[in-house]
Amino acid sequence: MYRTHTCGELNLDHVNIDVTLSGWVQRSRDHGGMTFIDLRDRYGITQLFFDLDTDRELCGKARELGREFVVQATGKVRERSNKNPRMATGDIEIEVRSLKVLNASVLPPFTIEDETDGGEELRMKFRYLDLRRNPMKRNLKLRHRMAVEIRKYLDEQDFIEIETPVMIKSTPEGARDFVVPSRMNRGEFYALPQSPQLFKQLLMVGGYDKYFQIVKCFRDEDLRADRQPEFTQVDCEMAFAGQEDVLNTFEGLAKHLFQKVKSISFNGPFPRLTFSEAIERYGTDKPDIRFGMELVEITDYVGGHNFQVFDSAGYTGGICANGCASYTRKQIDWLTEFVKRPQIGAKGLVYVKYNEDGTIKSSVDKFYDEKAIRKWIEIFRARPGDMLLIMAGDRVPTQEALSELRLEMSRQLQLVGENDFAPLWVVDFPLFEWDEETQRLYAKHHPFTSPRPEDIPLLDTAPLDVRANAYDMVINGVEIGGGSVRIHNEHLQKKMFEKLGFTDEQARRQFGFLMEAFRYGAPPHAGVAFGFDRWVAVFAGCSTIRDVIAFPKNNSGRDLMIDAPSGLAPEQLKELGIRIDENGK
Amino acid sequence: MYRTHTCGELNLDHVNIDVTLSGWVQRSRDHGGMTFIDLRDRYGITQLFFDLDTDRELCGKARELGREFVVQATGKVRERSNKNPRMATGDIEIEVRSLKVLNASVLPPFTIEDETDGGEELRMKFRYLDLRRNPMKRNLKLRHRMAVEIRKYLDEQDFIEIETPVMIKSTPEGARDFVVPSRMNRGEFYALPQSPQLFKQLLMVGGYDKYFQIVKCFRDEDLRADRQPEFTQVDCEMAFAGQEDVLNTFEGLAKHLFQKVKSISFNGPFPRLTFSEAIERYGTDKPDIRFGMELVEITDYVGGHNFQVFDSAGYTGGICANGCASYTRKQIDWLTEFVKRPQIGAKGLVYVKYNEDGTIKSSVDKFYDEKAIRKWIEIFRARPGDMLLIMAGDRVPTQEALSELRLEMSRQLQLVGENDFAPLWVVDFPLFEWDEETQRLYAKHHPFTSPRPEDIPLLDTAPLDVRANAYDMVINGVEIGGGSVRIHNEHLQKKMFEKLGFTDEQARRQFGFLMEAFRYGAPPHAGVAFGFDRWVAVFAGCSTIRDVIAFPKNNSGRDLMIDAPSGLAPEQLKELGIRIDENGK
Repeated sequence: MYRTHTCGELNLDHVNIDVTLSGWVQRSRDHGGMTFIDLRDRYGITQLFFDLDTDRELCGKARELGREFVVQATGKVRERSNKNPRMATGDIEIEVRSLKVLNASVLPPFTIEDETDGGEELRMKFRYLDLRRNPMKRNLKLRHRMAVEIRKYLDEQDFIEIETPVMIKSTPEGARDFVVPSRMNRGEFYALPQSPQLFKQLLMVGGYDKYFQIVKCFRDEDLRADRQPEFTQVDCEMAFAGQEDVLNTFEGLAKHLFQKVKSISFNGPFPRLTFSEAIERYGTDKPDIRFGMELVEITDYVGGHNFQVFDSAGYTGGICANGCASYTRKQIDWLTEFVKRPQIGAKGLVYVKYNEDGTIKSSVDKFYDEKAIRKWIEIFRARPGDMLLIMAGDRVPTQEALSELRLEMSRQLQLVGENDFAPLWVVDFPLFEWDEETQRLYAKHHPFTSPRPEDIPLLDTAPLDVRANAYDMVINGVEIGGGSVRIHNEHLQKKMFEKLGFTDEQARRQFGFLMEAFRYGAPPHAGVAFGFDRWVAVFAGCSTIRDVIAFPKNNSGRDLMIDAPSGLAPEQLKELGIRIDENGK
Repeated sequence: MYRTHTCGELNLDHVNIDVTLSGWVQRSRDHGGMTFIDLRDRYGITQLFFDLDTDRELCGKARELGREFVVQATGKVRERSNKNPRMATGDIEIEVRSLKVLNASVLPPFTIEDETDGGEELRMKFRYLDLRRNPMKRNLKLRHRMAVEIRKYLDEQDFIEIETPVMIKSTPEGARDFVVPSRMNRGEFYALPQSPQLFKQLLMVGGYDKYFQIVKCFRDEDLRADRQPEFTQVDCEMAFAGQEDVLNTFEGLAKHLFQKVKSISFNGPFPRLTFSEAIERYGTDKPDIRFGMELVEITDYVGGHNFQVFDSAGYTGGICANGCASYTRKQIDWLTEFVKRPQIGAKGLVYVKYNEDGTIKSSVDKFYDEKAIRKWIEIFRARPGDMLLIMAGDRVPTQEALSELRLEMSRQLQLVGENDFAPLWVVDFPLFEWDEETQRLYAKHHPFTSPRPEDIPLLDTAPLDVRANAYDMVINGVEIGGGSVRIHNEHLQKKMFEKLGFTDEQARRQFGFLMEAFRYGAPPHAGVAFGFDRWVAVFAGCSTIRDVIAFPKNNSGRDLMIDAPSGLAPEQLKELGIRIDENGK
């Protein structure tokens, strides 16, 4: 028996009882004849007390303990003279009678504190030490709690969790697959799933009308801060269900999680925006609606003043930054540089200051008279003290740039609080997008997404106008999940593959088993998948999903702790029937 | 809205209400002017009723429906005149008012019935149809329920589920790894985990003192009936815990599952057998203790009678088959052939019939007088009517052969009922086993298993006598899970690698990060992992884990439904920097 209690549970109720604790030495302090040690475990910290006069040898032993030593201490709980109200166990300490070193520790390469001095790379290399820090513990506990509550909610709704295979078949459409050479089937490969999409559709054909799975998925793409080669998805599908059923069920899930995990109640339904409305009002299909500052278009009110920038633009619009008329030249220059960064790519920024005293000052004064500008102010519904920030150019890129500017302004103006959450649904996505480079249509969601029935006639005449029965859930500007009503008709699915430029042969080779399955009584079905890492990160308030994953990889796809990937022994390669291609890329 | 109710819930309480159901046509029957259709979904079957006189057109439409058509029917619930007490919905039927075909179906390649006419290969190719059958539905629901209850129990015990990575580093020790070429790190490979062993130990170092995960694991080995290249493990680890803590915690888990899923209560602790006791009494380290018929050794009572077979044997022993004195010559010959099969490999079988009338008849009458044989009967505690089945040879193979014979006799004598369950722990496994071929020691469990402290001095002098702090849970003769106390001391771990013939360099290259982690305050820890597929199969009464996996692979590692593994496009190979080795194996 290594312990009778954890380091997080003792209080005044336990005074005078004998306890044994085990944990790590967080820090130790000597005050004259007394030594105090903070003993830490997963549950908290408890203070150990040693008195030089009472037991010189024991106290000496305590003084030799270094940081992160693993010790077991037995003694009596007693009330502290000097209480610490910020600690759950701050009212008591342990008067230690015996002490055993369970394991020593060399000095850690960074401090095990909430704010550590370790850089990202060091933290990743010694991830097991990083994981001892409170912020990481909080994140992993939150992740566990969210998984528990997701399963609880879905189980209560009669969903059953079914495991789908990890070693499947490569489907060249979409992102790159990771592949696994087969030793038993020489020259052939499995692929790791980018999602269990096809299998969950087959489960619907198999009659499992409410399926879910919290499951690892894999994507071999060049990595960014919020991407990992392996990530976790909450994957869900329902049969005999349409869009409304899915939206209601999973809005229920989100509300359940907000309630159980964040103690936040949402009354009434989540707002719903159509895709085109979201773009119009926020310049993005994942709007952060915790604050207003919506995009306002003034294209129709800027022409005929010989201002070439606006005259030649397909779109002129902006945002109204409340109380920013007092921004200095320097601040405005900074914003201009911000929108001109290559990631945003705007050409410039026009400002209009509507000063507190009612006067107006703008960067386009020489093109527009006061009357014209007052018209804009009216359209923006600006009040004295506000500043308009205006951009012009092609419609979509300009809206996207304004969206970035809007987010930046919300940070500068601190418009959102740490515990503000604003979920919504974005619906009616376009079914296709056009790729200029390859001159073909791509599926905006995936090739199994159903068009809205009323738009089916447009498939041949105006495919880019076809709206999909597809939806995203967005929280605080982060796309948490998305899904669609699926095609369950063999002929419509064939048509879809045709529009996407698949030959019959390609479609059959890659998705033949799904097409075949659809011939045996496929029910109508629809589903959704949530990015679990992202959802946890949003709830945890983390900017990177690496902070909610126990053992993440870095931006080169490496695990710095175990040093993977790594070379294989020649015999392994030989047995697998593959060779390294020594000719460069 | 596709349905108001499922096909499994309507009863007399619903009579006269209007309902809409959706599902598959299980079968249809015409009786004169009436047509009955059994409509099936995940929840059950409900009878639809159509009357030719009432609505000729509707009834005609119903008569055209084929098996497995997907339909939506609306009508009124009414009491059946001809009730079916074997169906949950057998008291009612639906008087259908409108019928919509949601999807047609071609004729399935096998019948969707409890006992199907489809062979294994056909069932696998059309797995989505096989999954519609009740036995498969029951198995997958059971699997879900077991996962729910495992998580519930462990969460209540303060375990947290933490996901460990799927793309890790290849460790040549043990079974073969599946590997994944890295595009971003050319010439390097990830490996898929055979278990999260190292990561869960690192989580213990990281302070997460109660970890679990229901997780996919991978092993590239030649497959047998109860093996799959990907399988699911309930992986668990505890810090500040020893063998007793683990056994108590997970015996609790097993009891919880028996109670919640099978409604079976176990009072008192599970039996515990040491490894050597299990071998002595049952000839196997995974004994089926649902019945007795234990092995009895008579080596000391057979010598000096000029019977060469027994005289030269290191072990002579057998089992007492109750009531089998009446076995015919033919039956005994069959048993002799059974034990001589190559899988068992015995040389022969000696019988002693202790007839009901007290007389004795044996196959070794010419070597042993009645007195000698009566001595055996006494040792076996045989009663009139019993038969002794005796084998001789080297100790271990003979015990193993007797174990197989014992299981066969239990089947012939039907000694176990369908709902009998007998769990136990097997403890004190040997730390090492000796491999004749490579002339070296291998870890019986794995290289991180701790020897029993009192046996540590034997590591150098008599390593094969060293017992491990290792344990298995066995139910009905199936090893459900196993685990061990781990080494948490850097030096003992080094010693262990040394005994296993690792060079320092090899140990450092493969497990360097674990050895390194142990230097930073590793707590004492211990764990266990359960084969989830096997556990579900035991609870479901299935002989193969394929029947409890939604999409299993066949014995060649192929998924017949999606036809994986498969070839890759040349561009994919090029991008990955690998080539197929065209020279044969």
